Amino acid sequence: MTELSSDELQFIFNTFSFLLWGALVMWMAAGFTMLESGSVRTKNASVICLKNIGLYSVAGIAFYLIGYNLMYVDVGSLIGSFRFLREPSSDELALLAGAESAREAVIATDYAVMSDWFFQMVFVATAASIVSGALAERVKLWTFFVFTLVLTGLIYPIVGAWTWGGGWLSQMGFQDFAGSTIVHGTGGAAALAGALVVGPRHNKFRADGTVTSTPPSNIPVVTLGVFILWFGWFGFNGGSQLALGSAADVLAMSHVLVNTNLAGAAGVIAAIAVSRPILGRVDLLAGLNGAIAGLVSITAGPDITGHYWAILIGAVGAIICTAAIKLLERLKVDDVVGAVPAHLFAGAWGTMATVIAAGADIGVQLLGMVSIGAFAFVTSWLTWVALEKTMGVRVSRKVEEMGQDVTELGIDAYPEFVLMPERD
Amino acid sequence: MTELSSDELQFIFNTFSFLLWGALVMWMAAGFTMLESGSVRTKNASVICLKNIGLYSVAGIAFYLIGYNLMYVDVGSLIGSFRFLREPSSDELALLAGAESAREAVIATDYAVMSDWFFQMVFVATAASIVSGALAERVKLWTFFVFTLVLTGLIYPIVGAWTWGGGWLSQMGFQDFAGSTIVHGTGGAAALAGALVVGPRHNKFRADGTVTSTPPSNIPVVTLGVFILWFGWFGFNGGSQLALGSAADVLAMSHVLVNTNLAGAAGVIAAIAVSRPILGRVDLLAGLNGAIAGLVSITAGPDITGHYWAILIGAVGAIICTAAIKLLERLKVDDVVGAVPAHLFAGAWGTMATVIAAGADIGVQLLGMVSIGAFAFVTSWLTWVALEKTMGVRVSRKVEEMGQDVTELGIDAYPEFVLMPERD
Amino acid sequence: MTELSSDELQFIFNTFSFLLWGALVMWMAAGFTMLESGSVRTKNASVICLKNIGLYSVAGIAFYLIGYNLMYVDVGSLIGSFRFLREPSSDELALLAGAESAREAVIATDYAVMSDWFFQMVFVATAASIVSGALAERVKLWTFFVFTLVLTGLIYPIVGAWTWGGGWLSQMGFQDFAGSTIVHGTGGAAALAGALVVGPRHNKFRADGTVTSTPPSNIPVVTLGVFILWFGWFGFNGGSQLALGSAADVLAMSHVLVNTNLAGAAGVIAAIAVSRPILGRVDLLAGLNGAIAGLVSITAGPDITGHYWAILIGAVGAIICTAAIKLLERLKVDDVVGAVPAHLFAGAWGTMATVIAAGADIGVQLLGMVSIGAFAFVTSWLTWVALEKTMGVRVSRKVEEMGQDVTELGIDAYPEFVLMPERD
Repeated sequence: MTELSSDELQFIFNTFSFLLWGALVMWMAAGFTMLESGSVRTKNASVICLKNIGLYSVAGIAFYLIGYNLMYVDVGSLIGSFRFLREPSSDELALLAGAESAREAVIATDYAVMSDWFFQMVFVATAASIVSGALAERVKLWTFFVFTLVLTGLIYPIVGAWTWGGGWLSQMGFQDFAGSTIVHGTGGAAALAGALVVGPRHNKFRADGTVTSTPPSNIPVVTLGVFILWFGWFGFNGGSQLALGSAADVLAMSHVLVNTNLAGAAGVIAAIAVSRPILGRVDLLAGLNGAIAGLVSITAGPDITGHYWAILIGAVGAIICTAAIKLLERLKVDDVVGAVPAHLFAGAWGTMATVIAAGADIGVQLLGMVSIGAFAFVTSWLTWVALEKTMGVRVSRKVEEMGQDVTELGIDAYPEFVLMPERD
Repeated sequence: MTELSSDELQFIFNTFSFLLWGALVMWMAAGFTMLESGSVRTKNASVICLKNIGLYSVAGIAFYLIGYNLMYVDVGSLIGSFRFLREPSSDELALLAGAESAREAVIATDYAVMSDWFFQMVFVATAASIVSGALAERVKLWTFFVFTLVLTGLIYPIVGAWTWGGGWLSQMGFQDFAGSTIVHGTGGAAALAGALVVGPRHNKFRADGTVTSTPPSNIPVVTLGVFILWFGWFGFNGGSQLALGSAADVLAMSHVLVNTNLAGAAGVIAAIAVSRPILGRVDLLAGLNGAIAGLVSITAGPDITGHYWAILIGAVGAIICTAAIKLLERLKVDDVVGAVPAHLFAGAWGTMATVIAAGADIGVQLLGMVSIGAFAFVTSWLTWVALEKTMGVRVSRKVEEMGQDVTELGIDAYPEFVLMPERD
Repeated sequence: MTELSSDELQFIFNTFSFLLWGALVMWMAAGFTMLESGSVRTKNASVICLKNIGLYSVAGIAFYLIGYNLMYVDVGSLIGSFRFLREPSSDELALLAGAESAREAVIATDYAVMSDWFFQMVFVATAASIVSGALAERVKLWTFFVFTLVLTGLIYPIVGAWTWGGGWLSQMGFQDFAGSTIVHGTGGAAALAGALVVGPRHNKFRADGTVTSTPPSNIPVVTLGVFILWFGWFGFNGGSQLALGSAADVLAMSHVLVNTNLAGAAGVIAAIAVSRPILGRVDLLAGLNGAIAGLVSITAGPDITGHYWAILIGAVGAIICTAAIKLLERLKVDDVVGAVPAHLFAGAWGTMATVIAAGADIGVQLLGMVSIGAFAFVTSWLTWVALEKTMGVRVSRKVEEMGQDVTELGIDAYPEFVLMPERD
């Protein structure tokens, strides 16, 4: 048998880390699906399932065709390469074909090229998942898929090129470990732009200033979704160490997982505690969104933040999220699952919290957060407007009333259960 | 501390790979359960849960008692040994008991004997899971368990002996990396045989030639099932590298996971795209089955197929699956979840696709596919017929009308929800 | 690149094992949530979700603030330290900050300090999860959280100090690998104490001696919960090897996973088989609880038990659980999900089974089981009584009748489905 060199061992550890934690992040797609499918009314619970498995698929193909290269290959300051397809290196192809002579060259790259692609691909899918929930119950199916293509093939990769790809924000030292801003801010900004262009659901905000209650149709399924996200977040943050081949790497991974869990837990407790003063009742959905907000908040700096800080960061993020839910309602922005509060607002907080908790540069953090937020918002808004002028973004009033399940898919999510007549 | 030799490191990596990826394949049992439980009508949603947790348990015990030895131990050309029980080696038992002197002998076997058993056991359970969905809503509970015992204790292990056990097909160079034919073809053929013997649900195919619609009762649960399967498939295909202790192994694993995801994603998109021309509407269930078909299709050769090929293979597999759903309906074969299209048809396509995409021998692939398909079909058919003559395979008309939940288990799946009166 | 020493490799393997398997145990929290949310009536299906995500959060914070130190730091015979917060070592903080000079000192500790905290934290959450199911549908929300704080911050850590922390029971040689008694017995005893203090649901046990049927409201969700638990149990038991850095460790892990699966499978089959004679029908819920009971039973000795013994231990555990369900009903103890039978009774059996199957000392096992059971029961009972005198433990009759979802949270779990009128 060949001896295993330290280089080869590191190659194994690093590659395996990408694959395993990446698989766990893929599982988050199921979490978003459950969260959203349980949050919408039953008449739209099937179409949101299709949107979610569809967006995960579109994101995966788009990131293979153009996204990854745009984000990571030959990045100057702003963007990478418009090369088509992401492929293994020629050394890797040789080793895959059995040429042991290629081994040293392969090992020298630290990890398998496509294992990194896999890990980054599930991240772009996460950003796209954020959008589907906010726009549920009224955005057109095919329009949503086209937007997903633009978001995952262009917008997100450009943001990624600025940061993880080594572009201008990275060069300035912008700190965003696993993407409070890069992933969650981008997804949240795209969702906000979409919510503004698509508009609120019919009669969500009544003429008399009151808000129509549209309670989640299936609470256990929503809760399951949040647990899936939490579980997957260990891959999302843990895998973002991007290496496992040294004591320092695995120590950092441990630090990251502990902070992730503490922030999520603190988020739940804080959101439940403030839900009564802010929302008027002990609120399960606030608690669930609090978990997500806590997790989003810690995501910018779980590697450099002390554990007690993680508790504080998660708790504050959850409170901000809870207040933002109320704020969006006041502003008559209709975000079905609270995606903008939990991802954009908590993501912004998390990005800035690294200044307080871990000494990140306030100017750089602010610049990064604002630049990415503005870029993602504006490009998304332009895309949504362009789609509005061409394909249309919004289903007809009749489709909205009857629900997209029956009208677009010809099925019911729960065809055998007798439903309450809808109050309007 | 003892120094870790390269041999010992490989032993650790390989064994851990079996355990971890095997655990993820076990999780696929939950995926099948959710997929099937959401696909049947509510009156049979509990009994299918029992069938699934029962089949996983029966498969695990049967493969421990006789299956593994028949598949892997002293395989000549056709079958292995009829020895009873699968046990750790005596060296392993010694090391487990603390005898460090046994370490070298243990390490020399490359992985822990029972870790391989664990990984192979979850595969046989997968094959059995395929059957339960196809025959849902009318096959007798205990008869199904007896069939599961035969399938997992005898039929599958014999197919496995021919191939992964080192028998005649393996010697000819049959390529089936993780089991497009060996697992999914065998399961699909057993399901088809069962569907023919058990017959369609009452009134599924009406005298006037029309087909009674029996829509899934719980779409979010079906969708969850498909996501679980996709997630678990990373273990199914990734773990099938059977080793993790070298750069070449982990590189192959990376290649496999990327292909797996691309094929699944392409399957979703292709199935949605062709669902309107083939099935007459944009169809969520086609999309979900498209994911499975894409995943099944790539399973024969994810290690030797280029990534762009994976997209094509997955897409074609999904189209074949969608068309086969229509075909089975024409042939009046009642397959509740589309198991035969997604596993048998897509599996056959995947097995042959290795010829086009990766230069596998067309004659050997064809021979392997046909031999295994025929063997699994004929032995399953004979078993089902024997069961029909003895225990009976089909519940009475009255049980079918009332549902198996109330009649066989005395419970309702959703006892508090008011149900729509059944149309007949 | 620095060479990887054997010490550093072991540090990586061990730490990674804690993180990965710990993440899988966290996922069990979702399993308990689904199991319980599907088991209660729809009118309480939301509040049990909140209790579960809340208890997981409270447990995580409490174990960080005081629990871990009490269980593991400077344990004499009875308890550890009342030091506040659990933090990385100063060497670890230095290495996290980039000081390579700290590497050797970090590596010498065998694993990252907080990775062990993470793994132990998800265990204490498991113990707390057991309680919520038993007391569902009538325990007050905030009281339950206060009890969780006491259980996870004090009671469980003290039990843990006696055993895994190195205290008196550990010194006597008490064998409880992953916690049949330490986790499941403690949780089960706390649940039993709570069930006695809180009392049965109104009219559960009628004056005429009959028992009101309160069937689970959502069987697929219950089944999903059990599959999640089974999947997570691979982390629970596998990770309890506490190391992965040698052939002996990974071999033991393999042995443990195989035994875990065999015991769960045997539990399912045995429980289904005996459900008809004991409960009067083939019972899905008995089968599902049989899986849990089988898994609990093997948890005390999966490392030292032969595989055939695992089958027997799991099967007997499931039969004991099934009989105990009947027994509790006779004793008019209302345990909504069968937590006491599946965790306390099967846990006790598993603890004693190590005597028969693996030569553990009968006196020590009995002493450990009784001491821990008695301590957990008495302290829990006192806590519940104290809570009864102060906050109150039980919701009002009116809240119980209307359900806690509407009254405490202001929502319905399934607001759109028309429900059957409740029979009383």
